[in-house]
Amino acid sequence: MQTADTLIRGGLLVAMDAAERVIENAAIAISGGEIVALGPAAGLEERFQAAETIDASDHIVMPGLINAHTHMADSLFRSLVEDLALEAWLETLWTAERRFVAADTVRLGADLALAEMIRGGTTTALDMFFYPESTAAAAREVGFRLMTGPVYFTFGSPDGKPPEERTESARAWIEEWMREPLLVPCVQTHNHLTVSPEDTQAARALADEYGIWLQTHCSETATEVATTREQFGKTPMRHLADLGVLTGRTVLAHCVHLTDEDVALLAGSGAAAVHNPLSNLKLGSGIADIDRLWKAGVPVLLGTDGPVSSNDLDMWTAMRFAGLLQRGVHEDPTLTPSRDIVRMVTRLAAEALGLGEVTGSLEVGKRADLILIDTRRPHLVPMFDVYSHLVYAVGRDDVSTVLIDGRIVMRERQLLTMNEGATINDSKALAREIAAYMTAQN
Amino acid sequence: MQTADTLIRGGLLVAMDAAERVIENAAIAISGGEIVALGPAAGLEERFQAAETIDASDHIVMPGLINAHTHMADSLFRSLVEDLALEAWLETLWTAERRFVAADTVRLGADLALAEMIRGGTTTALDMFFYPESTAAAAREVGFRLMTGPVYFTFGSPDGKPPEERTESARAWIEEWMREPLLVPCVQTHNHLTVSPEDTQAARALADEYGIWLQTHCSETATEVATTREQFGKTPMRHLADLGVLTGRTVLAHCVHLTDEDVALLAGSGAAAVHNPLSNLKLGSGIADIDRLWKAGVPVLLGTDGPVSSNDLDMWTAMRFAGLLQRGVHEDPTLTPSRDIVRMVTRLAAEALGLGEVTGSLEVGKRADLILIDTRRPHLVPMFDVYSHLVYAVGRDDVSTVLIDGRIVMRERQLLTMNEGATINDSKALAREIAAYMTAQN
Repeated sequence: MQTADTLIRGGLLVAMDAAERVIENAAIAISGGEIVALGPAAGLEERFQAAETIDASDHIVMPGLINAHTHMADSLFRSLVEDLALEAWLETLWTAERRFVAADTVRLGADLALAEMIRGGTTTALDMFFYPESTAAAAREVGFRLMTGPVYFTFGSPDGKPPEERTESARAWIEEWMREPLLVPCVQTHNHLTVSPEDTQAARALADEYGIWLQTHCSETATEVATTREQFGKTPMRHLADLGVLTGRTVLAHCVHLTDEDVALLAGSGAAAVHNPLSNLKLGSGIADIDRLWKAGVPVLLGTDGPVSSNDLDMWTAMRFAGLLQRGVHEDPTLTPSRDIVRMVTRLAAEALGLGEVTGSLEVGKRADLILIDTRRPHLVPMFDVYSHLVYAVGRDDVSTVLIDGRIVMRERQLLTMNEGATINDSKALAREIAAYMTAQN
Repeated sequence: MQTADTLIRGGLLVAMDAAERVIENAAIAISGGEIVALGPAAGLEERFQAAETIDASDHIVMPGLINAHTHMADSLFRSLVEDLALEAWLETLWTAERRFVAADTVRLGADLALAEMIRGGTTTALDMFFYPESTAAAAREVGFRLMTGPVYFTFGSPDGKPPEERTESARAWIEEWMREPLLVPCVQTHNHLTVSPEDTQAARALADEYGIWLQTHCSETATEVATTREQFGKTPMRHLADLGVLTGRTVLAHCVHLTDEDVALLAGSGAAAVHNPLSNLKLGSGIADIDRLWKAGVPVLLGTDGPVSSNDLDMWTAMRFAGLLQRGVHEDPTLTPSRDIVRMVTRLAAEALGLGEVTGSLEVGKRADLILIDTRRPHLVPMFDVYSHLVYAVGRDDVSTVLIDGRIVMRERQLLTMNEGATINDSKALAREIAAYMTAQN
């Protein structure tokens, strides 16, 4: 008899490993945060004496979801800016951010976002925001897997910091976070119009020095592409390629407006694209042709973008949009099979973010980032096809229990590692100040 | 002091009446199923002695949602048929329906759909399915407002009934249901390719005889339009117009592929169009240009379509798709303001279905079809814009309490008028039979 910290027994396991195994009545043993055994319950569960047992009968058990592009603390501004084009929208948002973004408010916004993300089954996120040290502190305390890092801005940064200052703090953060089990440092540039070519290259060099990832926004709107053509005489993708920024350790959020040459450059570089369907639609940016990117061999991940544009952090809705949009736009219902969509938020995302050894699937040796989905709900009955359910029927509130790195962070819809009520109250109090300030500006 | 059956106090009232009042800390008094008083709680609540009081603090209170196109009992086949074009998809579905659709299974499927719809805050639906008497019986027992009626099929009906038989039972149903408080009879034709011109006109005549509505499918796919052009030398809309079918008491589901002439015919007729964004995307049918229809003055309602294509009955997701698709397709974020989307599922829908005196808004004299939405959830904090929240952040599980015709059918997430557990168990048992049968067919 072996000992384990946690034994999950029963339920339908959707492993999302390379073999994409689906096992009925499965069991998973977890020890020291790691999956130490996994398979049919019969023959497995009796081998383990576990400190804690979770009954997963009538549940789907699958890897936690990976949100590959968001701005967590923007949750504080949810529904503040509506019905404007991206450029005007950003100006209004930045008015609020300039006044209200500080180390303590970012911490509050990150906590609010973490509550929402964990409730919805997200266990890993790639976040871009000011004061990333505050977001990292929140993630560390709650026990959430977070990739983030300093954000370079050369022109018009809402927080007014000069780029040199960022590089200085960046090194300290990167070195500190590389030692943390749940923090994954990266380097970020806002985009190639707000960050000079020199600063963009400095950011890339810093990332390369540590062998870590660089994230930026790319080809989000037609206006951005037109401005880039005016300023640099080329597309954003060509510009980034010429700067030497595109490598296999690059993540490009959006990629809505791409030429055929852009797609070839992207595919050839090994960089990943992040599809943010809700934000792109809401801001009128357009619809990224992810079918074309898939066919070119580009790893396409999925993100919610910030809750100020999306307007939430719900990866299930994002999956549903990702699956449905291609079919509608191309008028072809055989596109975007459900399993491919599930891959975008699990194994494929982990691999593209350099976390393939750690998370993104349920298999022995990986960290236990996993979620339980309650299937005894009328909208999930019957279930002829589990992948179809995951994309087209499951929603955030069907997630009942969440483990990250082996730690139970939500059990039966109760958040165990944070004070959700206090976070909601504090956020509402700050919202009253924000509303008053914005009214006074108009 | 007046007496009332129910007093709802506190909360943010979104009335969706003609003035579109939004009242903070409101109260609503309900007596005999009718709203007898409504306004700010101060000055109102002390006038009433209520048998039951519902505390709506931290909740949004709004009219129940109206799902204007669905096939409820198709919930039994959820996720059975995936990744096929509409015509092949229908053939496969009809294989299952021919074997499994009967009075008792339709009753089961309707119960399953009702559990899901009530949980999601839908209080009225326009349903098209075989054995409508079974669906009506389920709605009557649960206490759900249902518009349905016989479905004409001339060719290839999955249930094999000849059209004459339908007209016979139709009269009895219509007369019976016209006396029922929650049932609203209508007449339905599947579409103009499966129903002959003569039978289509007979259905219209029957509807006109009773002054009730006619529902049909129209211009769902490019294939349907092409076949209609071949068979009749005109578009589906022109064909229906020439048959005299388009009036102010007509509801046309889908309207995806329309010419400019079609839009003018539709607008001139006063008929309503029902947008089913998830189903149209999933089946690769395309994206209806509802912005164009709005601008032409067509009442556009919203539906989920059947859960076999959508794959659920979630009106919140449907609202989100309706709002976002136009912005993305037209690359214009100022289109489809949130309030317009909320209108599509409340007042506008009720008016277009002839229920404007009964439901669709919260005002004195209307029946009490209303829902409470819990806003103390991280994805709904903060809330700078309530209409934006209703379209872009609220989800089915935020609905905590539902009243239909003044009766509390769900309270604090507990369904009070049906046995949900038994419905889920029975549906799962039937699903095993369906799966075995479909496997044997292949």
